[in-house]
Amino acid sequence: MGRIICAGLGPGDPDLISVRADRAIRGAGHVAYFRKKGRQGQARRIVDGMLAADVVEYPMEYPVTTEIPFDSPEYNRLLAAFYDDWAARLAALAASCDVVVLCEGDPFFYGSFMHLYTRLKDRVTMDVIPGITGMTGCWNATGAPITWGDDVLSVLMGTLPEEDLVAHMRGADALVVMKTGRNLPKVRRALARAGRLDAAWLVERGTMPGQRITRLAEVEDHDCPYFAIVLVHGQGRRPELAEAAE
Amino acid sequence: MGRIICAGLGPGDPDLISVRADRAIRGAGHVAYFRKKGRQGQARRIVDGMLAADVVEYPMEYPVTTEIPFDSPEYNRLLAAFYDDWAARLAALAASCDVVVLCEGDPFFYGSFMHLYTRLKDRVTMDVIPGITGMTGCWNATGAPITWGDDVLSVLMGTLPEEDLVAHMRGADALVVMKTGRNLPKVRRALARAGRLDAAWLVERGTMPGQRITRLAEVEDHDCPYFAIVLVHGQGRRPELAEAAE
Repeated sequence: MGRIICAGLGPGDPDLISVRADRAIRGAGHVAYFRKKGRQGQARRIVDGMLAADVVEYPMEYPVTTEIPFDSPEYNRLLAAFYDDWAARLAALAASCDVVVLCEGDPFFYGSFMHLYTRLKDRVTMDVIPGITGMTGCWNATGAPITWGDDVLSVLMGTLPEEDLVAHMRGADALVVMKTGRNLPKVRRALARAGRLDAAWLVERGTMPGQRITRLAEVEDHDCPYFAIVLVHGQGRRPELAEAAE
Repeated sequence: MGRIICAGLGPGDPDLISVRADRAIRGAGHVAYFRKKGRQGQARRIVDGMLAADVVEYPMEYPVTTEIPFDSPEYNRLLAAFYDDWAARLAALAASCDVVVLCEGDPFFYGSFMHLYTRLKDRVTMDVIPGITGMTGCWNATGAPITWGDDVLSVLMGTLPEEDLVAHMRGADALVVMKTGRNLPKVRRALARAGRLDAAWLVERGTMPGQRITRLAEVEDHDCPYFAIVLVHGQGRRPELAEAAE
């Protein structure tokens, strides 16, 4: 009997993969990863040059991404069938060998792998290897700590209604907004209404080639990059001598 | 001229250190790390067996931890002088060689290293290597995803006033509470008032030997472990077939 090993890949730089996940990836005979149809996929790109020459690859291509609304019954039906199908295929494969599933960031933090995990955990031996989250890579890329002292950090999805975004942006000290993309104009409006826009940064392709860090207020509304996270740094308690603060 | 390299150590298991940090630690000639006076220290313990035989070690011992209130002027004065002093010593050392500073979790997420970083970044070349946060290690240890779909995740410190804790616990879907320790009874009361206590888990020594995962409601009030994080998992949107949900 084999196992399904999910390797958290971290934020994008292959040098930020954990020692354990690095070992699993380089030693893999079978690797599976999610991607949009017709694309190489970000997970596969991260491990370029790390895979064994004779590895067998299983690209798991989403049947739909943003073509239909994510909260429609049709989207739900298509995605559920997709995860059911791949869960069955990976379980069959794991009957005879180990399979490594590649996952960007950390597998248990808003990841697609979780949908396979819940379907498989009671019938296959699973080993999930944590990864550095994308947001951690992004706040490190800004060169400034995200939280100090008692700061409250809230992680928000750009898909939330604008009113909800505003309320959470007002209530927390430090902010991370993911799933920005086409939601970026709404995220900007919400930050402005919460009085936080001037402190917001847009990090694109954090830790990866082509990384770009911009003040969100200076980004054009039609500029909606995909691998982008919005950050507002906390400004909490820190010990400073009176003379040092001058 | 040398550099100051901060190596994020991740949640505790040395196998979860990034490839880049692992290389920096094993190749280090000089390592510095924080610890409580008279203790080995968690950062130093994580790298046991990884350091070169002739490495020079610089334990940075906190002048005070919980003996006086963290919000008192005396605490602020002592800590600021401590960070100023070590910043000067590390800068002097980095004039002639590289120094690796060991930091649990991720260096830019509520870490002590940030206080050295802000003092040194304009006068010494710094290289900060991200790490898997302690909370990421802990939610992986529970074997359940922390966030799904549009879940809002809030990270709270147990040092916050009870009223603030209750408000944030009511407003978010997924919760992480750090700095629990002697604040654990207050954190429990706040979770109970927010109607979240039954869903809360206490993770002690996540990813480390002696790891313990308990329902928080079943923990005694006098049991206040130090390396412990409280988690409430989000239950957000996930695609399920109608028949699969039966």
